[in-house]
Amino acid sequence: MPRWEPDARERIVAAALQLFSEQGYDETTVAEIARQAGLTKSTFHRHFPDKRDVLAAGQETLSRLLAEGIAAAPDDAAPLDAVAAGLRRASGAFQPARAALVASVIATSAELQERAALKQVGMAAAMAAALGARGVAGPVARLAAELGALALKQGFATWVAGGATADLGELMCAELDQLRTTAAQL
Amino acid sequence: MPRWEPDARERIVAAALQLFSEQGYDETTVAEIARQAGLTKSTFHRHFPDKRDVLAAGQETLSRLLAEGIAAAPDDAAPLDAVAAGLRRASGAFQPARAALVASVIATSAELQERAALKQVGMAAAMAAALGARGVAGPVARLAAELGALALKQGFATWVAGGATADLGELMCAELDQLRTTAAQL
Repeated sequence: MPRWEPDARERIVAAALQLFSEQGYDETTVAEIARQAGLTKSTFHRHFPDKRDVLAAGQETLSRLLAEGIAAAPDDAAPLDAVAAGLRRASGAFQPARAALVASVIATSAELQERAALKQVGMAAAMAAALGARGVAGPVARLAAELGALALKQGFATWVAGGATADLGELMCAELDQLRTTAAQL
Repeated sequence: MPRWEPDARERIVAAALQLFSEQGYDETTVAEIARQAGLTKSTFHRHFPDKRDVLAAGQETLSRLLAEGIAAAPDDAAPLDAVAAGLRRASGAFQPARAALVASVIATSAELQERAALKQVGMAAAMAAALGARGVAGPVARLAAELGALALKQGFATWVAGGATADLGELMCAELDQLRTTAAQL
């Protein structure tokens, strides 16, 4: 029996990122990732269905944190203020040392970009559901969630472009404020 | 030399849709699609890189029509009114007899959903660029384009759910009006 690998998941992510950036996403196999991580292929598959799921793994966590932050906002918070609370909660999950590498690997692969686009739809849906659970009406919840997803994407891009040193939560909330101001002008 | 097939592209799309819906997207090969269309594999590949590109083909046309409609809006049209003109222009490209089938095939495949999500990002980018060319400031252009992409998606879903008999352009513009009203409340 293989021994328990408490940090296997983290090692797989680190090994995959290294290989994707060194030799390209398309050229990297699950077997290579497992070998680089010092694990078997079957251990890899206990954690991830396929190599493309490695980079998407953090996005389920993001959806959960966004929803938790929205749920924990004060009862009288406006919908976009609840979204801001979700963005702040989720921002803590981003690792500065890794963010630029993940972004650059995704930029090289159409397949990963497609997956990332769908995950963004999933994050918006998670936020809309969390707002709905607070009693926010459907159309308002959906639009506030879409603005939240845009603020997350744009704030992340600004953060990575600046070397991932700034406060990510503040950047995302500044983007959301700008979207709110812009929305009022339309 | 193969003879010229003036309607090859259309025959490929029809054959692919039939096979995808009958036997499933994952189970259908390019060779089967070509055979069903009465064409060779190399003719298929002169029109589409791979089977997944068949369903996405219409989306490039949509981006072009959205941009054309926005460019052709009156000079004094507000950004969202220009977007509405783009939606009306693009709505003419949807084929009622085919829309529900395309939507149902996409719903069965995670790969096709990912591709559709990225294409939606592409349509929003095309609209934002067309608004920028009209002199609309970046943040306003990007948000108006995002609302346009949402209106297109939601209007299309409503249209398909109703049997694709209503005026699609009107449905999309009604969604856009609702988004504008909702945005003012945030």
